Amino acid sequence: MITYPNNIKKNTKYKEKEYGNRGMTLEAELNDSNKYYLENNIAVIYKKPTPIKVVKQINEKIVKAYFEKPSTTDYNGLYKGKYVDFEAKETKNTTSFPLKNIHNHQIKHMEQITKHNGICFVIIRFTKLNKTYLLFAKDLIKFINTNKRKSIPLEYFQNNAYLIKDKLMPKVDYIDILNKYGGIQ
Amino acid sequence: MITYPNNIKKNTKYKEKEYGNRGMTLEAELNDSNKYYLENNIAVIYKKPTPIKVVKQINEKIVKAYFEKPSTTDYNGLYKGKYVDFEAKETKNTTSFPLKNIHNHQIKHMEQITKHNGICFVIIRFTKLNKTYLLFAKDLIKFINTNKRKSIPLEYFQNNAYLIKDKLMPKVDYIDILNKYGGIQ
Repeated sequence: MITYPNNIKKNTKYKEKEYGNRGMTLEAELNDSNKYYLENNIAVIYKKPTPIKVVKQINEKIVKAYFEKPSTTDYNGLYKGKYVDFEAKETKNTTSFPLKNIHNHQIKHMEQITKHNGICFVIIRFTKLNKTYLLFAKDLIKFINTNKRKSIPLEYFQNNAYLIKDKLMPKVDYIDILNKYGGIQ
Repeated sequence: MITYPNNIKKNTKYKEKEYGNRGMTLEAELNDSNKYYLENNIAVIYKKPTPIKVVKQINEKIVKAYFEKPSTTDYNGLYKGKYVDFEAKETKNTTSFPLKNIHNHQIKHMEQITKHNGICFVIIRFTKLNKTYLLFAKDLIKFINTNKRKSIPLEYFQNNAYLIKDKLMPKVDYIDILNKYGGIQ
């Protein structure tokens, strides 16, 4: 049975999950956090719309379309004048994060962003461990370039990523990590 | 009859237009320009996917969906570590740009971006005049806040915006304007 913490707002969209002891998905929590950042004048970060290939349309109504694979990351925006760009993923795995969850063109995009001095990272939640990590793109890319493994072991996160502590508001306070370790003045 | 300049690449997607003496739409030219910036390691700017509300889906196939009004601008990305955000519009009008082309929530978004020190602007093309202007968001907002007019006269662009000169590559070189007037070091 899933137990929801009492402090969750009623109007928040839930998505029931089979595993994990949290009611909200990472995506819902990030959307809430971004809303908090926006309303409190902290940062302007949005989730990009999912790319959809429209095949057939009758007047205003789309009658045939398909989801496309995103070629970039899911979230981007602005914090203190700087460009922020990230991808967020959940895994039910308890010992490693399978790299198949991130496409090659997304890795390439993250390389571009890092090269152009953007602040780029992934947020990975191990749902069964109830741990959420922020791993900077440079450290993700370093792992991929120096390992043949198809998944990143939990220890790599423990040693190279930053644990995002559970908070009431914002739920996933990744800006706090950027303040401390993101090289933002 | 529309005459295409000889130098346009054959694989570029054309959209026939009733008016104007140019073959390519501003959107197609901006996509080409952004591709040029990316491939030449100048900037990483993308057009965001159009938001679509999916109502019904059968397996992989979307069978009922609608276009949604974008709540932010069409383009964003990264130039020299800085966040860049803009909207692009064409008008057939020859004396002014009708403000109904830009939604209120887009204006609000541009205010947010400007407040957080992002580089924010609109690119407006007067197709019949064959003139393309870059107007910074602060000057767009100043006009809206100090005028009751529902359109921005051409003179306002002539006095407050920057003319983007026609080039072979990139076609719409807005980064050139940012280098000169965008406060980028």
